[in-house]
Amino acid sequence: MVEAEKGALPPGAVIGMLGGGQLGRMSALAAAALGYRCHVYCPEPDSPAAQVTSRATVAPYDDETALAAFAEAVDVVTYEFENIPFATVEFLAPRVPLRPGPEVLRICQNRLREKDFCTAQEVPTTGYAAVASAEELGAAVAKLGRPCVLKTVQFGYDGKGQVLIGPNSDLDEVWAEVSGAADVGLIAEEFIDFRLEISVIVARGADGAREIFVPVENHHREHILDQTIVPARVSEKVSDKAEGIARHLAGALDLVGLVAIEMFVTRDDRVLVNEMAPRPHNSGHWTIDACTTSQFEQFIRAVAGLPLGSPERLANAVMQNLLGEEALGAQAALNDPRAKLHLYGKAEARPGRKMGHVTTIRPKE
Amino acid sequence: MVEAEKGALPPGAVIGMLGGGQLGRMSALAAAALGYRCHVYCPEPDSPAAQVTSRATVAPYDDETALAAFAEAVDVVTYEFENIPFATVEFLAPRVPLRPGPEVLRICQNRLREKDFCTAQEVPTTGYAAVASAEELGAAVAKLGRPCVLKTVQFGYDGKGQVLIGPNSDLDEVWAEVSGAADVGLIAEEFIDFRLEISVIVARGADGAREIFVPVENHHREHILDQTIVPARVSEKVSDKAEGIARHLAGALDLVGLVAIEMFVTRDDRVLVNEMAPRPHNSGHWTIDACTTSQFEQFIRAVAGLPLGSPERLANAVMQNLLGEEALGAQAALNDPRAKLHLYGKAEARPGRKMGHVTTIRPKE
Repeated sequence: MVEAEKGALPPGAVIGMLGGGQLGRMSALAAAALGYRCHVYCPEPDSPAAQVTSRATVAPYDDETALAAFAEAVDVVTYEFENIPFATVEFLAPRVPLRPGPEVLRICQNRLREKDFCTAQEVPTTGYAAVASAEELGAAVAKLGRPCVLKTVQFGYDGKGQVLIGPNSDLDEVWAEVSGAADVGLIAEEFIDFRLEISVIVARGADGAREIFVPVENHHREHILDQTIVPARVSEKVSDKAEGIARHLAGALDLVGLVAIEMFVTRDDRVLVNEMAPRPHNSGHWTIDACTTSQFEQFIRAVAGLPLGSPERLANAVMQNLLGEEALGAQAALNDPRAKLHLYGKAEARPGRKMGHVTTIRPKE
Repeated sequence: MVEAEKGALPPGAVIGMLGGGQLGRMSALAAAALGYRCHVYCPEPDSPAAQVTSRATVAPYDDETALAAFAEAVDVVTYEFENIPFATVEFLAPRVPLRPGPEVLRICQNRLREKDFCTAQEVPTTGYAAVASAEELGAAVAKLGRPCVLKTVQFGYDGKGQVLIGPNSDLDEVWAEVSGAADVGLIAEEFIDFRLEISVIVARGADGAREIFVPVENHHREHILDQTIVPARVSEKVSDKAEGIARHLAGALDLVGLVAIEMFVTRDDRVLVNEMAPRPHNSGHWTIDACTTSQFEQFIRAVAGLPLGSPERLANAVMQNLLGEEALGAQAALNDPRAKLHLYGKAEARPGRKMGHVTTIRPKE
């Protein structure tokens, strides 16, 4: 009915979303503002994302009948987390446009491929080595020094699947502990005594245009993001370096969508890529309340083939995650009139579960 | 599961929304951010509001079986337009909390009651007189002078149900034309050659706290809002007067919710109330993109018993409605990176129909 910009999905078109979590939920809200519909596909009923749209499929990621019907029912497919089975994406790719493309997902699903990609792009990362045997573990630790960290290359998030190798760790014991995960793949990484962890989110449109959000500072508790401070308290030089890396990687990935790049800032102001997520990111939630265009809207614009919006920051902000039972008293935050509460519609407040967040707006003036 | 602030609906609670238009849609999006669910009730299938929630009832407003089930399924009921049949509200009121309360709706549904209410509150309005007969029409025109305007007291919106009585209008002919609407009720109103039309939106929480958005300037085309300019280009004195009126009326109405008050600013800087709408208003759409708290979030906070948020303006803005076929090329607006496009999910671009809007952000600095 309504005409589309050249190459863009017309209003009323349906964006298929793999995954039903809070990132999908906030993306669906952004899609609705732009006049799109979301069709959520995930295995769990009444997921956070499915609550905010009239269209959802509840089915496993390997249900080819459900996937084929999903592909028929939507105009484009995207995903809200990178641990989607790659076979799901391979099944969908010939049937419906997928943004970001499968190759981006293949790289970002795997810490080793991610780091190899950065290295090929001459983007600095922490030192690392692939580990497939006890011998390779020994060689890796010899190369990287102690302490270092052993991680699964895939399906790790929020600190899951990590082992710290300390000065006295017995490598045979470590190997016995982790060798069961060797078929997923393992990577040893240099332990960085960094000054600050920051992240940069960059969007890249179908036309190749890139727009970047200001670098932010992330603080973790038990490996889970706790607080994001905006903007990051870094020098202009560090900020420029971080933005340069993010822009470059988005281009090199031939990304259509959004990528969040976590980086370490070392005590001597080097900037090292830690990991990449080709989707909206927890450290970008503040953009909903403090930017002209949010990360979720930017993501949907890219996926829909629309021009990107201005990422300018209208205010400073602090984003506080609400984990598990911290969410129980969340409404109390609203006693601060500049606190923006976001809850994800999750019924059960399991320990460490991301239930919501609060962004507190701090005027720039 | 999640505890609520004293008197507030807990996260996960269900807000029942009478009406499925764009105001309900944008309210539902704001409710989702706060962790609430919306259950939309309206006669039309696939309404703009129902598209953004997993819960909807499609039934006429006089279907008591459907209304009773709706009342059972929700924790509070609100409405997104004031032309809901009052009988619907009377049916629901004993069954489920209604915010704003029925009395607010009863007053604001009817231009005569609205003006009588303002007069009782010593708030200036345009001159007016009730008209129930040809004789009363003559008396009203004699009192108000020509030109004046004859309107139905109810169900008029966007200029529908209005007759201009000019210097040469034959009152017998006018009466013959309108007398069919006399059972709805008629009101004659002074014609104001105003300098500017402004509106002020004020929220009042369950605790009696009031928060007000800055007065804005409204420009109409064919009686339909075309453009809102933020802030209104008026003196501080006029602005203060307008805000004072709005605060006072919200209190006098014992409102829990949001009221938009349209006012005329005369050439000698008097401020006269034109009409009140006890719900989010087209002239407040800019708040989504330029305020710490949007009118929709403020509305939901009040209805849910949460503290109100800060209405501070982070940027200036111009809001342009997209009417009918104007929406066909709407995406072109996005070539301005500071343009925020909002489309309402309406399939058919009928003439004059509100299809969406574009808010252009203008930084304050």
